[in-house]
This record gives sequence, C-alpha cells and structure tokens, in this order.
Amino acid sequence: MEANGYDGLLRELGVDLTLHRDLVRYNRDIHRRTFGSVRNRPASMRWFDDAVEASHGGRVAEIAAYRKAGGRSIGTFCIYVPEEIALAAGVLPIPLCGGTNWSVDYADRMFPRDICPLIRSTFGMAFSNTCPYKKLHDGVVGETTCDAKKKAWDLLGFQVMEVPQKKGDLDHALWLSEVRQFLKYVEGLSGVAVTPERLRECIILANRRRATLQRINGFRRLPEPPISGLDALLVSQVALNQDIPAFLAACEELIHELERRVQRGISAYQGPGPRVLLAGTPSPMGNAKVHYALESSGLRVVADESCTGIRYYRDLVDESAEDLDGMIEAIADRYMSIDCSCFSPNTERVEHVLRMIKEYGAEGVVHNILSFCHTYNVESKVIDRALAAVHVPSLKIVTDYSFEDLEQLKVRVESFGELLCARSAETVAAS
Amino acid sequence: MEANGYDGLLRELGVDLTLHRDLVRYNRDIHRRTFGSVRNRPASMRWFDDAVEASHGGRVAEIAAYRKAGGRSIGTFCIYVPEEIALAAGVLPIPLCGGTNWSVDYADRMFPRDICPLIRSTFGMAFSNTCPYKKLHDGVVGETTCDAKKKAWDLLGFQVMEVPQKKGDLDHALWLSEVRQFLKYVEGLSGVAVTPERLRECIILANRRRATLQRINGFRRLPEPPISGLDALLVSQVALNQDIPAFLAACEELIHELERRVQRGISAYQGPGPRVLLAGTPSPMGNAKVHYALESSGLRVVADESCTGIRYYRDLVDESAEDLDGMIEAIADRYMSIDCSCFSPNTERVEHVLRMIKEYGAEGVVHNILSFCHTYNVESKVIDRALAAVHVPSLKIVTDYSFEDLEQLKVRVESFGELLCARSAETVAAS
Repeated sequence: MEANGYDGLLRELGVDLTLHRDLVRYNRDIHRRTFGSVRNRPASMRWFDDAVEASHGGRVAEIAAYRKAGGRSIGTFCIYVPEEIALAAGVLPIPLCGGTNWSVDYADRMFPRDICPLIRSTFGMAFSNTCPYKKLHDGVVGETTCDAKKKAWDLLGFQVMEVPQKKGDLDHALWLSEVRQFLKYVEGLSGVAVTPERLRECIILANRRRATLQRINGFRRLPEPPISGLDALLVSQVALNQDIPAFLAACEELIHELERRVQRGISAYQGPGPRVLLAGTPSPMGNAKVHYALESSGLRVVADESCTGIRYYRDLVDESAEDLDGMIEAIADRYMSIDCSCFSPNTERVEHVLRMIKEYGAEGVVHNILSFCHTYNVESKVIDRALAAVHVPSLKIVTDYSFEDLEQLKVRVESFGELLCARSAETVAAS
Repeated sequence: MEANGYDGLLRELGVDLTLHRDLVRYNRDIHRRTFGSVRNRPASMRWFDDAVEASHGGRVAEIAAYRKAGGRSIGTFCIYVPEEIALAAGVLPIPLCGGTNWSVDYADRMFPRDICPLIRSTFGMAFSNTCPYKKLHDGVVGETTCDAKKKAWDLLGFQVMEVPQKKGDLDHALWLSEVRQFLKYVEGLSGVAVTPERLRECIILANRRRATLQRINGFRRLPEPPISGLDALLVSQVALNQDIPAFLAACEELIHELERRVQRGISAYQGPGPRVLLAGTPSPMGNAKVHYALESSGLRVVADESCTGIRYYRDLVDESAEDLDGMIEAIADRYMSIDCSCFSPNTERVEHVLRMIKEYGAEGVVHNILSFCHTYNVESKVIDRALAAVHVPSLKIVTDYSFEDLEQLKVRVESFGELLCARSAETVAAS
C-alpha cells in the first residue's frame, strides 16, 4: 500500500518508507484533530490542507524535478536567511523546521532531550530517514539566533549566518557582511551571478508574499474575523514551502472568499469569545497545538506575534534601491529589523506587542513558549511588565509538541478565557 | 547569635539575617562535605577555606570599607568582562556567579525553573536578600555568552557587553568596540581616566594572577599531583573575589608547600586512580559537586577545562604595547581568544582539549554540564568526536547543584573509573 503515491520517489531519496508511512499517518491525525476542529472554514482553505499533505508528496516531487533539471536548493531553519538573495541566484530555499511530535525522540542520537522540540523534531526526521528533503539540497544554512541551534549547526557542519545580538552600527555592518557572504555562497552553489534585475524581481516577489500575508491577517482585526486563528496559522505554515506564484494565487482566492464573508457577516467563530494575541515561539507545519488548545476552549486567536506570524511578514524590503549594493543593504536592513528575542535589549518587540494589541483589539496575551526556549521564556517577563502597565492580562504556556498536557493546558486556558470575559463584562458595565 | 560576626554590616546592606544565617550554615556543610573530604591537604589550603568563609563576612567588610572610602565597584558574571580595565579606572570587579544550591529556588520570582542553576543561584540570592554584595556595587555588567544570561540582563536592566558568536575580522572589531565602551563606562562610574601607566600596571597584575594559577595547576601534570582536583578548584574559586596581592601571597605559600611535597614525594591522593580532565561549565564558589563525585570515587581530576579552570588563566594579555590604544587592543585580543562554547564554530576548544589531555596525562574526559546549558551540552558531542579519533573515552554528566543525584552520579563515575583502569591495565599488558 502506498501512503501517498510517491513511494518510488521517496525510496529513491533514501526515505524509510515504513517509518515515513507512520509519520504521515500521525501528521494526518494531528491535522484532522487540530485544523479539522474548525467549524465553518472558508472553502478555499482546502488548498492549504492539500499543501500540507503535498509537503510529503507532491511538493517533494516538484523539488526533485526542479533539481533534476539542474535547479539548486538549500535547507533553511530561520526567517533570517534572506530568501530574495537565494532565489535571485537560482537557489530555492526549503524550510526544514520540524513541527511534528512524531520524530522528536529520534533526535536523541545527537541532541539532548532538554532542547526545544522544534530542533528535535527537525533532526529526528533527518536521523530516522523520514525527511523527504534530506537529499534535496546542496547545503544547509543555519544561523545564530539561539544557543541550541547555533551549536547544532556546528555539530552538523552547516553554514552559519551570524545574527548579531545587539542593533548598533557595528552589528549592522557585521550583518551586512554576513548577507554579502551568503550571496557569494548561493552564487557559488548555482554558478549564477545575482544581477540587479533579477534581485529586484525576487525582492518584489518575496514582498508580495509578505504583503499577501498581511492582507489575510488583516481580516483578523475585524470584530468578527472571517478566518480563525488556526486557519491563519495554516496559511503561514504553508507559505514558505510552496511555489510562490501558486501560493499567491491560492491566497487571492482565499482573500476573495474572506471579503465575501465579511460582506455577508460570516464569522469564523460560532459563539462569542475573548480575543487574544499569541506571542512568542513559532509553530511550524505539523504543530498547531496551542492554537488548538485556545480556539477549542472558546478563545479567538486574532494575532500571531511569532516567526510563523507577523515576524515573517511585518516588514517589506525597500524596493527603491537602484543598484545591487543598495538592494543588498535594503535586504540586510529589513532582516535586522526583525524583533527576534535573540537581541539584547529587544525593546522593539515590546513596542510591537503593545501596538498589535491595539490593532487587533486583543483583550489578553498568551505567551506561547516552546519548552527550553530560554530567550522567549525569559523575555515574556519583559513583555509582561509592559502589559501590566496597560492592564492587559497574560497567560504563559510553556509546552512541547506532545498532546499529553493538552487537557491541563485547556483548564488553564479556560480559566484565562473566563478572566477575560469577566473583565470585558466589567468594562461594559462601567461604560 | 551572630553567624559570622558581621551581622551589623549585613543588616546595613539589606541582608535578611535569618535567611543569610541559614545560607551560611548550608554552605559550610557543603564545604565540609566536599573539600573536607580531601585527605592529606596542603596546610596552606587553610587560607583558601577561610577566604570562602570570608566571602560572606570579612571580604564584604573589606569591600564596604573600600566603598565608604570612595572606591567604586561593579558586579560581573563572566570572565569576558576585562578586569584590567575596570581596575585601571579604580573600579573593583566583584564576581557574582552563584554556586550555592541553597538559593536556587528563590529565583522562581523571575526566572524559569529550566535554566541553569548558576543563574538561578545568583538571582536566588539577590531575590532572597541574602547576597551581601547586592548593594556593594555601582552597576552590573553582563554579557551575551548564553541565551539565558543575555535575556536575564535585559530583564534586570544591566549593562551588556556583546561577545560575538564568530571570530572573524568584524567580530574582532565589534568586540574591540565593546571593550572601548566598557572602558568609557567604568571611567564614567569612577570619574578616573584610565592612563597607560595605570593600565599597564593592572595588565601586569591580572597577568600575575593568571600566571600564578598556571603554576599551581602545573603541579597537577605530575604523575603524583601534590594538590587534588578539589583543592585546585578551590584556589580558582577564590581567585576572583580576593584582594589580588593577598591572593598572590597565599598562592606563593601554597606553591612553596607544593614544591616541598613534590621533593618529598607526597601525593594529594592516597591510592592510585585514573586521571581525568573535567571539561565544560564552571563550578563557581559553593559548588564542587562533580569534582567531589569524581574524587570521592577514586578518580583524579588533574585538569579543569572550564571558566573556573584553564579558560580563565590560559592566556595572558600581551604586555608589550606602548600606548593606551595598543593595550586596549591587546586586552580585546586576549579575551577574544577564550574558547567559550558561545562561538560557532569553536574548533579552538577541541584543539585545546586534545592538547590538555596530553599535557596533563589524562586517561579520560568527564564532561561537566550544568543542567540546561545548551551550548556546552551540544558541544560535548563535537568534543567526543575528536576524542573518539584519539581513543580517549568520555563520560557526560549533566547535573545541577543539588546533591539528590549524587549517588547515581557516583555509580556512573565508578563504572567510568573501572573502564579507565581496565584500559590502562591492557596498555601495560600490551607494552
């Protein structure tokens, strides 16, 4: 029995078919349990469901065919790796971040158990020979955004981009130099020199993807969002591992549907519920656990302050540069503006959270912290101080990908939801 | 009842006397249990025992008097903060790293439980008002060597020195700029401009401290070391929080005694035992658990590859610079040569470990990893690869400051010791 019709290709790619079948089955179950719980989904979300399924089949075949035709690709883990530059050199970036709990324990061959599930999931797939992308790249580019990843790259001999830890002038210069080296690296892989014309096209293309995500997420600001937090996450999860024009076309269809829904007063949510901003670590494809815990408990996740949320699409690259150097600088500037918790201090993030609360009408903040992620965990305290000053309550969830603690989480989430409802009722009574 | 005769002063410094008494009692018990287990100690180790005791009494009084007389001081946590520069500006650096398990849980007010015990111990003392140094400084200078510390500094509003993550030209430039800013910072605190003459004196003084530690640790290379690993650790722990001339004088006395012991064939160890290099995270004052677990199980810790070991004293600052700029550059260079696991890649550390194995005649390596220290934990795998190539076995210990797992550790350590003895017997048989 073929799991998804791509057994021949997967075998060729060194995938352990028996284990892979089990992985795909596990992922389908989780997908059905989480995203399948959304009632009244936009019909055009179907494409995004299919894209998740395709990430272990059709998309693999696409990339394999692209590579057979001479195309080059790299694996990446972080939104700090400048996609515009890779694309302009004819190198396709493939995001490798793992979101499945299935593979977490397979990471034990090399990694400690007390590092974040994202890293363990990713390398668990590689070590168990279930990652279909393992042989579909010419190199892997990591970065220094956290201790565990930084040292993982050393251990595995990957390329490493140094993301600085402050945002001073020399930090900008250092990062610009890293971006330039990355350009040389991808040019070296493909043998294609990056031209200003091609780079401009790629800047515009990547900006379109970000702007499209802004538009979709903009609908979540409405009093009755036509798209749920779960579905908005799904769109973001799919964004980075799809042919960009195909992704944009599917998004346009979704946007039309969302517009129609707004006109007709159709909400993604069945009953009323408090609006929360989810802040912190990313939820890569395969993991929607905290979104699910929140929305299945009657809360509305109206904004994602994460790398699978606004951190990826908040800022566009300035398109006005005329020459290659100017474009590279604009790209470096844009990436340095990301408010990752790797920076010290990270005051921009505090300001962004406060602004998002207003823009999305959030009544509370839920910190979503992957286990053992020190930076977002400690930084949640900094955020909480700012929230206390504006009287916005928060709940901190520290968890991994396992569903073992789901019911415990839901108890906490429901209490938090009640607190938000009570506050909202007080506000109404007082006005 | 006064715990140590300094109650009046401690009260003045805002110390909670009841809790502090409990802390001191706890620390004494641990000191007796660990260092007190060493048989046949050099008589001159007494001074170092007293120095530990004085760290909660006499030394506090010294620093308080120094400050009352107008002296300035800063708290530090890491050997990356250039002590020569602080001293040259008339600012005394006080190392604040906590090594006591007593205070660990008091850190919960701000910090996650799953960060390293060193950070939790340090801030647990601050939050429980048992750290006598809390009010004895004009500022605190942290650095970016790990995620948890970096974000802790943000949360607490400390000065932060950016230690880069690679060792390229721009990284060196960035670090030099940080060192220059640090100089401005300490000059600002004291109002004393750093002169070349004074800086040279302080470079020489700090170099003397490092060279003295080199000499003491050099005795551990001998087939029968006249000083145990535990006692050598104690010397290092005391080194940074003592008046330097007094420390150097005590060290000279110890060195004389060690020389006499060597002449008379007196070993610090009673029976034979395998020689191991202890590699990884530091053991700040109050924590000698892993050294104790090893040496009380019959192993000989003959070298410390840590920040409370060779990482502090391996490299001296080049003393040949003529002007201030040259001295600052020499200082920056020397600190950048430290092989902290915060660097990517950290190949120097691998080379250093291999060299130390030869120099100290180590038969095996024990990785000493503080719980949740991602960088040293993951990097131990990189080290292990290099060790496998030269057929040196290793044991990884991941633990905190608690003695709860001591017996478990000892079981593992004893097995490792047996393995080393068996290998040594084989080598003898084969030769």
